[in-house]
Amino acid sequence: MKGKVYLVGAGPGDPELLTLKALRLLRSAEAVLSDELVSPEILKLIPPTAQIYKVGKRCGKKKILQGEINGLMVALAAAGLRVVRLKGGDPLIFGRAGEEIESLRKNNIPFEIVPGVTSALGAAATAEIPLTHRRASSALVLITANRASEPRSSEKDASEKDATDWNKLAGSGATLVIYMPGQNYPDIAKRLTAAGLAGETPCAIISRATTRYQRTYRTTVLDLHRAPQFAAPSLLVVGEVVRLADPAAMVDEFVVSDLPLKESLLPEELFKTFHSQAPRLGADEEPIA
Amino acid sequence: MKGKVYLVGAGPGDPELLTLKALRLLRSAEAVLSDELVSPEILKLIPPTAQIYKVGKRCGKKKILQGEINGLMVALAAAGLRVVRLKGGDPLIFGRAGEEIESLRKNNIPFEIVPGVTSALGAAATAEIPLTHRRASSALVLITANRASEPRSSEKDASEKDATDWNKLAGSGATLVIYMPGQNYPDIAKRLTAAGLAGETPCAIISRATTRYQRTYRTTVLDLHRAPQFAAPSLLVVGEVVRLADPAAMVDEFVVSDLPLKESLLPEELFKTFHSQAPRLGADEEPIA
Repeated sequence: MKGKVYLVGAGPGDPELLTLKALRLLRSAEAVLSDELVSPEILKLIPPTAQIYKVGKRCGKKKILQGEINGLMVALAAAGLRVVRLKGGDPLIFGRAGEEIESLRKNNIPFEIVPGVTSALGAAATAEIPLTHRRASSALVLITANRASEPRSSEKDASEKDATDWNKLAGSGATLVIYMPGQNYPDIAKRLTAAGLAGETPCAIISRATTRYQRTYRTTVLDLHRAPQFAAPSLLVVGEVVRLADPAAMVDEFVVSDLPLKESLLPEELFKTFHSQAPRLGADEEPIA
Repeated sequence: MKGKVYLVGAGPGDPELLTLKALRLLRSAEAVLSDELVSPEILKLIPPTAQIYKVGKRCGKKKILQGEINGLMVALAAAGLRVVRLKGGDPLIFGRAGEEIESLRKNNIPFEIVPGVTSALGAAATAEIPLTHRRASSALVLITANRASEPRSSEKDASEKDATDWNKLAGSGATLVIYMPGQNYPDIAKRLTAAGLAGETPCAIISRATTRYQRTYRTTVLDLHRAPQFAAPSLLVVGEVVRLADPAAMVDEFVVSDLPLKESLLPEELFKTFHSQAPRLGADEEPIA
């Protein structure tokens, strides 16, 4: 009998921001292929009987090729297992899910996609930045920093057919959320300026949002090149809406703030509940506040 | 004692796509202010002791002004209640959360933002459309159709300072997800063409995604004006990635498909569990498949 693959979004980090469906699937998984970006607290929710494969492609370690991940996923499901392919945030945004889906279809493996809270939304909630606003921006652009530092599409290898115009997007006046900005702030600042953004356009870097390690840094396009390094995952939000952010967390420009962690079930408490032998699992019914 | 306001994302429709945190807050709410777009199955999760206010601004009914919603929210919290402001999808995307946040801050009401799965991600998961793809699009634009049919920003009332350039966004080559397209397909098609999109660019309309009533319709920019009307909420996805959608659900152009509802806990089963007197609540531990 064939197994099934679930491409599941793990959300931005806080285990309480998993969906009910993601939790149910994780708890009944027989094999889990997890990205590097998924928080350790969430990995602890996987039953001890399940096989766990970390298939992250980051942090300078030996690269796992996308084809190897596809092959492993197909092989596990073909062996009859219930497989969860766990991705940070949402699986369909910057997650290479397209290639995994093609591979699953080609091999006739049943699969299902379970959306998650993408990191931009977790970061914006943490820093209290409305991503759209009647008086500031009526659109939201999600993009990666790779694209910011890469050559323009016309100069790229012809096999990469992507022709997304970074300059048009950056210069559109929409709120930009740049995923995986890495350590590349001077380059990103140059590209933003080249796209026509004013030097005083506010920016915020939000690192490890929704976790107890979250930090934020507010600056402008002009001073972005001076931004310090933050732990991954981090995000860069650019646009007038950043002025509307939590005033307490963003007291001043050039100040790194530890964002207060809002109320959340402590991971330990969640795990105790989830791992208990009780037939019901989930968040505790008692309000915290 | 002052209460607190939680701005909570209800996700795209399926109650199982609520986050654990959203469920916990809903179950302990003393007052809920809910948008029209929140599905009835989710509203059933609110405890019977809570006050419920439907503050939707849609469907031709008498308009509730944003100021009235703000006032009600502030008054309930000032009276000491634990208030949930429930919004479809995520609260910070097209939800006027910015204005509500300003009002809460001005009145010194403690508040917290709980992100949710935005509708674009629910619709894409349902239709199996990777929103970004190495070979097709490296960015995602979320925008509303209001902006598609409105006059350009230069012609608008000066009090609306938004200067987002719809043409640049639409013509950028990024995947577009147009929220609330309404019945306005001929206008949207004209604006897409004016922005430089080729007539053969594929589009998908996804109606009531992640619910048992979900439907999808695939067409092109050229033929978009002939699209039939669908029940709200619906979304329009535009871009090359639509070619990668679920082939079973999108057999042919101009065909309206009932998308199969993937496995999900039946609402009845969820409610039974959530409403039980047991100290634990949440998804049932037994896998369905």
